[in-house]
Amino acid sequence: MPRVTQEHFDARRRQILDGAARCFARNGFHATSMQDVLKETDLSAGAVYRYFSGKEELIAAIVGEVLGQVHDCFDEAARGTPPPPPDILVPSVLGRVLATKESLTVDGRPAFARLVVQVWTETLRNDELATVLSEGYADVRRAWTRIAEAYQEAGMMRQDVDPEHVARTMTACVMGFLAQQAMFGPVPVEVLRDGLRALMSVPDRSSAGMPDTRSG
Amino acid sequence: MPRVTQEHFDARRRQILDGAARCFARNGFHATSMQDVLKETDLSAGAVYRYFSGKEELIAAIVGEVLGQVHDCFDEAARGTPPPPPDILVPSVLGRVLATKESLTVDGRPAFARLVVQVWTETLRNDELATVLSEGYADVRRAWTRIAEAYQEAGMMRQDVDPEHVARTMTACVMGFLAQQAMFGPVPVEVLRDGLRALMSVPDRSSAGMPDTRSG
Repeated sequence: MPRVTQEHFDARRRQILDGAARCFARNGFHATSMQDVLKETDLSAGAVYRYFSGKEELIAAIVGEVLGQVHDCFDEAARGTPPPPPDILVPSVLGRVLATKESLTVDGRPAFARLVVQVWTETLRNDELATVLSEGYADVRRAWTRIAEAYQEAGMMRQDVDPEHVARTMTACVMGFLAQQAMFGPVPVEVLRDGLRALMSVPDRSSAGMPDTRSG
Repeated sequence: MPRVTQEHFDARRRQILDGAARCFARNGFHATSMQDVLKETDLSAGAVYRYFSGKEELIAAIVGEVLGQVHDCFDEAARGTPPPPPDILVPSVLGRVLATKESLTVDGRPAFARLVVQVWTETLRNDELATVLSEGYADVRRAWTRIAEAYQEAGMMRQDVDPEHVARTMTACVMGFLAQQAMFGPVPVEVLRDGLRALMSVPDRSSAGMPDTRSG
């Protein structure tokens, strides 16, 4: 295939995915029709259906792309042995993910967080999407579990806690922070950095397993 | 009003709210009709409309009730000066909230987390609900801000962090944990306790403001 055609193909596909993402972020999957997507992208039905068979395929492509980007952002941010501490790493991963999607706006406001919450709700009624998301979440959890293990190996974190519980907690922080942005407007990732830093400063006095070696 | 009538009134109102909550948790607000609510509660239209004028009023009543319960659970769990540390307090508040709603099930599985995520999505398209939720979130944030201030006053937390940032981070943890439960099934609150405890054990080496007084 000549290079210009491939470029055209990619650009057109991008245009459709971005338009569909705006529609979904605005109104959710259920209330968005393919007609809405055609209108948003300013393309004909023939042009759009050459790329995607329908709404389901668009949803799957968008979610798959976002999960892939989350994965890449993790790989980049978690480099180093041991990886950066949570107050650096969590906002860094989140900031990278938000940066890949900063062109996604609805009514001039960032809309990635809205899209994410719409995806969550859609998974509650769409088994296929639930499977995709469940696998993506397992991937993210595995990445975080490895990071928690690295903290423990480096003596940066108490060793009597299941690293998967750390993974679930860190993921929860990021997910909840996105939900807040979706509902109550954008907040800088530094807020999360400060909150995690403050949490890390609280003396861990629980006696289970690891002795508290701190003076505080 | 004679006591038996008030009891009957309360019980009938409870029956309607619980049935509607099950419908909303199962299918979301958009896809639930008042017919669905009548069918779920096994009541006549006349009986239900005596209590609620329609779906909007049901949604507002359910959300208002949950926000009130969250507030009460906070008040109870945060007693003490200083309040219990985050790894005790966060799971305690969450556990109390989940306990008030443990009778809410869909297909035999706990459904409170599903309902919460459905509420989030609905706020993206319902301005009235967005206002209610925004005020409820501000309440919760204020409660957490006071707790963070109490930690700081007691010397349990570094003092150079805006307590509201701590509040947003703690709230994010709980929200994200609920989102995980909604999508991927129930997880005991002890997972969150462990994760927070592990986070508290990470040495806070950032130099900004407060000297690190720990040996770790």
